[in-house]
Amino acid sequence: MKPTFRLILDCPDRVGIVTCAAEFITRHNGWILKASHHSEEESNWFFSRVSVDARSLPFGIEGFRNEFAPIAREFKMNWRIVDSSVPKRVILMVSRESHCLSDLLDRWRNSELECQIPCVISNHEHLRGLVEFYGIPFLHVPVTKENKAEAFEKMVALIEEHRADTIVLARYMQIIPEWVCERYPTRIINIHHSFLPSFVGARPYHQASTRGVKLIGATCHYVTADLDEGPIIDQDVVRVSHTDRVDDLVRLGKDVEKVVLARGVRDHLEDRVMVHGNKTIVFK
Amino acid sequence: MKPTFRLILDCPDRVGIVTCAAEFITRHNGWILKASHHSEEESNWFFSRVSVDARSLPFGIEGFRNEFAPIAREFKMNWRIVDSSVPKRVILMVSRESHCLSDLLDRWRNSELECQIPCVISNHEHLRGLVEFYGIPFLHVPVTKENKAEAFEKMVALIEEHRADTIVLARYMQIIPEWVCERYPTRIINIHHSFLPSFVGARPYHQASTRGVKLIGATCHYVTADLDEGPIIDQDVVRVSHTDRVDDLVRLGKDVEKVVLARGVRDHLEDRVMVHGNKTIVFK
Amino acid sequence: MKPTFRLILDCPDRVGIVTCAAEFITRHNGWILKASHHSEEESNWFFSRVSVDARSLPFGIEGFRNEFAPIAREFKMNWRIVDSSVPKRVILMVSRESHCLSDLLDRWRNSELECQIPCVISNHEHLRGLVEFYGIPFLHVPVTKENKAEAFEKMVALIEEHRADTIVLARYMQIIPEWVCERYPTRIINIHHSFLPSFVGARPYHQASTRGVKLIGATCHYVTADLDEGPIIDQDVVRVSHTDRVDDLVRLGKDVEKVVLARGVRDHLEDRVMVHGNKTIVFK
Amino acid sequence: MKPTFRLILDCPDRVGIVTCAAEFITRHNGWILKASHHSEEESNWFFSRVSVDARSLPFGIEGFRNEFAPIAREFKMNWRIVDSSVPKRVILMVSRESHCLSDLLDRWRNSELECQIPCVISNHEHLRGLVEFYGIPFLHVPVTKENKAEAFEKMVALIEEHRADTIVLARYMQIIPEWVCERYPTRIINIHHSFLPSFVGARPYHQASTRGVKLIGATCHYVTADLDEGPIIDQDVVRVSHTDRVDDLVRLGKDVEKVVLARGVRDHLEDRVMVHGNKTIVFK
Repeated sequence: MKPTFRLILDCPDRVGIVTCAAEFITRHNGWILKASHHSEEESNWFFSRVSVDARSLPFGIEGFRNEFAPIAREFKMNWRIVDSSVPKRVILMVSRESHCLSDLLDRWRNSELECQIPCVISNHEHLRGLVEFYGIPFLHVPVTKENKAEAFEKMVALIEEHRADTIVLARYMQIIPEWVCERYPTRIINIHHSFLPSFVGARPYHQASTRGVKLIGATCHYVTADLDEGPIIDQDVVRVSHTDRVDDLVRLGKDVEKVVLARGVRDHLEDRVMVHGNKTIVFK
Repeated sequence: MKPTFRLILDCPDRVGIVTCAAEFITRHNGWILKASHHSEEESNWFFSRVSVDARSLPFGIEGFRNEFAPIAREFKMNWRIVDSSVPKRVILMVSRESHCLSDLLDRWRNSELECQIPCVISNHEHLRGLVEFYGIPFLHVPVTKENKAEAFEKMVALIEEHRADTIVLARYMQIIPEWVCERYPTRIINIHHSFLPSFVGARPYHQASTRGVKLIGATCHYVTADLDEGPIIDQDVVRVSHTDRVDDLVRLGKDVEKVVLARGVRDHLEDRVMVHGNKTIVFK
Repeated sequence: MKPTFRLILDCPDRVGIVTCAAEFITRHNGWILKASHHSEEESNWFFSRVSVDARSLPFGIEGFRNEFAPIAREFKMNWRIVDSSVPKRVILMVSRESHCLSDLLDRWRNSELECQIPCVISNHEHLRGLVEFYGIPFLHVPVTKENKAEAFEKMVALIEEHRADTIVLARYMQIIPEWVCERYPTRIINIHHSFLPSFVGARPYHQASTRGVKLIGATCHYVTADLDEGPIIDQDVVRVSHTDRVDDLVRLGKDVEKVVLARGVRDHLEDRVMVHGNKTIVFK
Repeated sequence: MKPTFRLILDCPDRVGIVTCAAEFITRHNGWILKASHHSEEESNWFFSRVSVDARSLPFGIEGFRNEFAPIAREFKMNWRIVDSSVPKRVILMVSRESHCLSDLLDRWRNSELECQIPCVISNHEHLRGLVEFYGIPFLHVPVTKENKAEAFEKMVALIEEHRADTIVLARYMQIIPEWVCERYPTRIINIHHSFLPSFVGARPYHQASTRGVKLIGATCHYVTADLDEGPIIDQDVVRVSHTDRVDDLVRLGKDVEKVVLARGVRDHLEDRVMVHGNKTIVFK
């Protein structure tokens, strides 16, 4: 992969944004590898992700940041510039189920997910062996009714200590306290084992079986203080029938959970996901 | 298609049901073309659909009914025997949107849906031309706030007069009164333009757009007195993205509505759908 | 829909193309509604589709054409500018099967396909009634072994007479002569009833049944002189099983044919499809 | 899971097969958990899979075999009776790519695949660590142009020594010699990284990219002496677009390969797959 700078921005829509950003890059002889734009009509808001060959520019990321700042100010942009060669730091959190973890770690080792994983945190010991096989520190932080507040303070301390950009809940079966959700907006990614907004909350496969749906799904979303209500990054489904019992739904659902979580995490790591209200723009 | 007799039954599960039914057919030299069974473990209930080459049997449908009755009694079966060569009588109900109607009528003319359509009922005049092109009587029964009770009494009279087995709501945009739902259990089929149980009620595509889902769907279900809560026959979905506005969701959703409704109606017409509580068994 | 101008272009890739085009539009106070770009690395070729609010510009389509020409020359562009308010003229060609035709005509009447249909041409009389119901002239041009050359000359004369931009083969069961294919490059759209490149040629559902595939599909592509080898616009599949006989494959396949053809035609009509060698870029 | 006996049979179709088998089981007070039948009209052949609660029968598997033999003879059945509590013995063969292996091993550890894995054989050392982490012996059998015959003799010796029922080629990048294919009919399962019959042979993702298809797929099939021509067990696809380069196709395809191979292997292990000519019946 070529080293690239990713310019991510959103601002009120008006004439000239694309031109101004493009003109800036061209003026510095930058090679635009990919440019994606989106205009949200209702809110009159503009979103953009532009990736530029880093080697074509006369300056580094700091130079880009300084030079582009006046344009950003003029258009009132929320923006950032990201160096693709600096991997994000991702902490995985898991409980007892291995399918998402095993899938993510295999992808990570095969360079499909470009990130560092400073540690995996779990409220159980079950998955220590797998994590350590991949050479990643495994931190056991038990969570009980009694120690929940304390446990999450410890976890936040670990997140800070390891300078994590992103936390991935890979079937972590604890509800994240509100204050933690609010501390890391659009930085905590969860996989919910239903096709949201169907079957919010506990035991979605049981709910699905009771309702008699003919497809079940999984949803990857950013975690907010409203349980299972955060912005959706990706979803998918699989067909089921009357012959499938709850344990079949659980099994079939795992395949969807794995792939939807992996796609969502990958899109996040590549800075393809922008949040607008409670919705996402995902630039493919 | 060979003329077939379809034996449809359900009863408490126990040893010997399959054998007894099969033995009955074989004793009369009947050729079993297809046999499907399902045991619901939780409720300990058994379901079966067996189709037999009608020409291989020494009796007609009445003979079958008489001969099989003692076995049915022994096993406490809910059951029926259906002659595939007698087409069901189906009334379509529509409002202004043509996509489902046009799709169903084309399939009907191509013998994909084996039924008679004695008439199409609509609360609008828009689709008269299309219906009459296919040689089917079009009956306009306007529905207003004031005349709703009366209008539905008229429709029930029409259903009775035309001896309809099945009523298909092909995007009929009126809520069916409770008493009508209860009069025709598992005989009224609706297409709801969302992936139920997500987005019950009005304007589901607007709801889907607001929630920011990444797939939208449609659900074919039997109508019960609980709006959008009846047993689901079939569902499907299509991928959408942040670039799709509500009118795009409406357009993309139509393709799913059409195919899901047609599949559900076909399964119903071929006596493949059995209802158990609020769930369906669909024998493929 | 807002009237828009669509700027469609491709050229050798180099620094500054996006900037130059965007700057041109901005300089004239044009409002860019949507901009899509693609760089093909292997061939170092650049593709772009930009749609601009026509009312935001100080000139009409001719003015745009004149003003933009020097930029196009500089970058050695293949390009065109299209006025979305001028509907394309589309001739449908059909044989005996109604499913694609009926589906396209219903979409057309519902304004899902923005085009004029000056006539439908068929080698059979079967579908005259349906076409005339929609108020479209139906032209019967019989094709036999003996008159094939003559018949296609007549059809080309009709295409010219009706100034058709696009010809859609909606299950037209005749092979188009090479000289006709070459006369209308990327203007004849076909639906092939298999997932190409599987099952080229005749009776693809029979071929699929013989091979025992577990999914069947359909492919919408531009027609070239190489049968079933033209650039693919869209494809899709549906699951089948050992219980499906050839006539079931035919029936299930129709649902895929309809939707794939409609999507391909719509993308073509909206100038979203660009051809590069034997592949397509489809800007969504 | 309840211990079950699975009766798998096929024979010329005629009246009475279902009855006779069902009557046999009922006579011995056997509880039929699931019964699936299929009649292939063209060849007039009948297929069946019946699973019986083993504890409801008065005899063990040998008793079943002896008692059922006369019926089997009468109907000229190919048949076997399988004890679900005796796990099959499966050897996995891999090369360098970990995605299918990692996926299968995680499923195996989670009891999704009920089998024993006496060893994994590879022509490379790359995946030793992963295999040994799961506590499975890893056997390195290098294959070169020079030693190919010898290497496969060694592998067959290993297959025999470990009494393997099934060999799964989980992205094993060597062509299996004809004599090995013929020695283990319907016992060697391969995952081919294309939607067969498209893109037979080497580098299917490159072929797919060149052809410009809009969906790519994977195919799980039994290995026969005809490369990539064996009976298909399962297939699936994923959507791609012009933005996906070959390495994207490779990455996206892996997700399909994993799930299709796992489904095929699971169906095989549960004796759901029957082969008829070059096609499969897969009883779900």
